[in-house]
Amino acid sequence: MITGSTHLLAIVGDPIDKARSPESFCRLFELNGHDAIMIPVHVTSANLAAVMTGLKAMRNLDGIVATMPHKVAMAAFADEVLETGRLVGAVNALRRCPDGRWEADMFDGRGFVAGLRAHGHDPVDARVALIGAGGAGSAIAVSLCQAGIAALSVHDLDAAKAARLAATLRTTFPKVDVRAGAPDLATASILINATPIGMQPGDPLPWDLAALRPGTIVGDVTTKPEVTPFVAAARAKGAATVTGRDMYEGQVRELGAFFGYPLEKAA
Amino acid sequence: MITGSTHLLAIVGDPIDKARSPESFCRLFELNGHDAIMIPVHVTSANLAAVMTGLKAMRNLDGIVATMPHKVAMAAFADEVLETGRLVGAVNALRRCPDGRWEADMFDGRGFVAGLRAHGHDPVDARVALIGAGGAGSAIAVSLCQAGIAALSVHDLDAAKAARLAATLRTTFPKVDVRAGAPDLATASILINATPIGMQPGDPLPWDLAALRPGTIVGDVTTKPEVTPFVAAARAKGAATVTGRDMYEGQVRELGAFFGYPLEKAA
Repeated sequence: MITGSTHLLAIVGDPIDKARSPESFCRLFELNGHDAIMIPVHVTSANLAAVMTGLKAMRNLDGIVATMPHKVAMAAFADEVLETGRLVGAVNALRRCPDGRWEADMFDGRGFVAGLRAHGHDPVDARVALIGAGGAGSAIAVSLCQAGIAALSVHDLDAAKAARLAATLRTTFPKVDVRAGAPDLATASILINATPIGMQPGDPLPWDLAALRPGTIVGDVTTKPEVTPFVAAARAKGAATVTGRDMYEGQVRELGAFFGYPLEKAA
Repeated sequence: MITGSTHLLAIVGDPIDKARSPESFCRLFELNGHDAIMIPVHVTSANLAAVMTGLKAMRNLDGIVATMPHKVAMAAFADEVLETGRLVGAVNALRRCPDGRWEADMFDGRGFVAGLRAHGHDPVDARVALIGAGGAGSAIAVSLCQAGIAALSVHDLDAAKAARLAATLRTTFPKVDVRAGAPDLATASILINATPIGMQPGDPLPWDLAALRPGTIVGDVTTKPEVTPFVAAARAKGAATVTGRDMYEGQVRELGAFFGYPLEKAA
């Protein structure tokens, strides 16, 4: 029940009507006893500055989540961008600090790591093969390096893009053995598809899984369908999987903590 | 349940935590099958322009209600102020029109008229004695004149204020016999207290009811307590009453219709 004392969080996007976060957060806020809601805010890029300025001036609003197409533009509305957001070059959440400043960070990759851990997989010392060096891939790569993996290969159809991401990561995470290049299924302990391949019916696999070892954990970022052909093929080979939904649910928990609303109870 | 497709209305005020409208509207929206919520927005006068500009730029937000202290300032954010708002000199609601323009109007008085009607009292041809020519009194006076009363007396401790309101009303509503001056309990068919007298314990009555005729309808604007000493004294004399709560509930229905969310079912 919304009352005059209910606190607000907002998710901004264009479109916004298919966003699942308002429902997910509202359900979890209620379950965990927080008097807060997440409201959907439909805003075009042309109006983003006006809406962000207005949201930040609402004294009972604690934080803002950005979804497409606002993840890159959002950083400009923060007083400080935290480490993950700086490395990824995009943020998807802002919070009001006790002193009134606004901090931003990127949680897409942290959601994947949380999804891994929720399934009992510790990323420490893992050897990760990543397919896709775009926004989702970059965020996942940074969060995995922060989590203490041993090695990372980055593959992208745009080889220069993969090389740029690998170079940035090598500089920031000298202890991780980072290279640009194709996945090596013989050595990877975690294989991740961070491309949209698998969202459309009839999409090919983003990578051939014939050589997949059963002990490899296979991840995907797509939430619709939750079980992509890539996830289904991995499961058929006996691999454990982390789906886009696992990543999304991990991110919801991470965002709740960031905004000051711990979501320990899950439905 | 809030989803990505839920539409927004907002109530802006400072403070906002005691506002009952978010709860009232959310309950009635749900009961009447509207996928909409009213969010509380805490905004200071200094930040009102930023927040209003932001709210108006949200494409899934249909309307804004203003409460204290923003009712006078709100008119500046409308493209057009409708008749009641122009006459009262303040508005408490803005709505987005299909062509993108924003219309504002004042519903405090219309709520009182709706409260009267909900109790079966038709204001047509009534002889009204009004105590208090401030914001609430002005709004009630305008809405009663629009509803077709025959006569209106306006009393205020600030006699010049009462005279100004009476003069404005005479010009706009030449068919209504408007005068500034004390209530005449011998002729009034409706007697209304539109002052805050009765909110504090130990307040005197705003007018002596010794001469009240039992057929007179007695109204009050105070919602806390709902039964003011004035309402209680009127009831003791056998008079029918319209309370601040009746006025508030009447206004909620009127606002729902204004925003395009008819609230025919009431809990």
